[in-house]
Amino acid sequence: MAEVVFREARRDDVPSIVTLLADDGLGATRETVREDVDADYWCAFDAIDGDPRNALIVVDRDGEMVGTMQLTFIPSLSRRGAERMQIEAVRVRGDLRGAGIGRQMMEWAVGQARQRGCRLVQLTTDKQRAEAHRFYARLGFVASHEGMKLTL
Amino acid sequence: MAEVVFREARRDDVPSIVTLLADDGLGATRETVREDVDADYWCAFDAIDGDPRNALIVVDRDGEMVGTMQLTFIPSLSRRGAERMQIEAVRVRGDLRGAGIGRQMMEWAVGQARQRGCRLVQLTTDKQRAEAHRFYARLGFVASHEGMKLTL
Repeated sequence: MAEVVFREARRDDVPSIVTLLADDGLGATRETVREDVDADYWCAFDAIDGDPRNALIVVDRDGEMVGTMQLTFIPSLSRRGAERMQIEAVRVRGDLRGAGIGRQMMEWAVGQARQRGCRLVQLTTDKQRAEAHRFYARLGFVASHEGMKLTL
Repeated sequence: MAEVVFREARRDDVPSIVTLLADDGLGATRETVREDVDADYWCAFDAIDGDPRNALIVVDRDGEMVGTMQLTFIPSLSRRGAERMQIEAVRVRGDLRGAGIGRQMMEWAVGQARQRGCRLVQLTTDKQRAEAHRFYARLGFVASHEGMKLTL
């Protein structure tokens, strides 16, 4: 398997990341990809990029973007003052799913959490994605919580 | 009903907040309250207090702390570059549960999210807290996601 490389996203990655986010049964209904990506996407990138507790990660293989995810580090008084890592917006390129890239991404993310001293890694996954739950369970995640959302 | 007042936590609120977090069937197994609150709690407070995307909220009534919650604002490329509010570590003082304080806290938090232009409010709640799911569902939250946790 070709090696995957993890790096922080650059500003010029934004259109490709948005394309990846939309390349998904659920995401396609939520993202619009235009040649000139909307101003809101650029603002969001700048906010993430300038925040030491947020990292937008890009996964490259053979010079092509094959995956993305966002890591957020949340300081907390819960669990004896532990910082937690939250993983959001995980996507692997549609034609490459099932090839182990997602697993490598999660193992890398959990490694980052350990290095930083986080005591918890958390994520939510849509209940419609049954295969995703099995994937995360195999990695040791426990579906102990209800993930509740209120759209404004 | 006496009026509740919302404010950001001060450093000298930390021992009371940790006591509130522990005042709970699940939290009691996770938090230790000592006269000199552990260094990790103070570090966590300073991290939250110094972060413009985190707010530790205290709810007072008649000059007494009756509730707490943490708000985290997460910038994201998902959902067209929307910022989301995440609510964690929600607690109402044990002897005051069921008196409407939790509802006022959530309504206040959602109001803050709207003012800030967030397009999503999210939280996870332990599957053992069935009454909490019903509470959030009555407020409009949809249990659309699995909340998965990996303890390190």
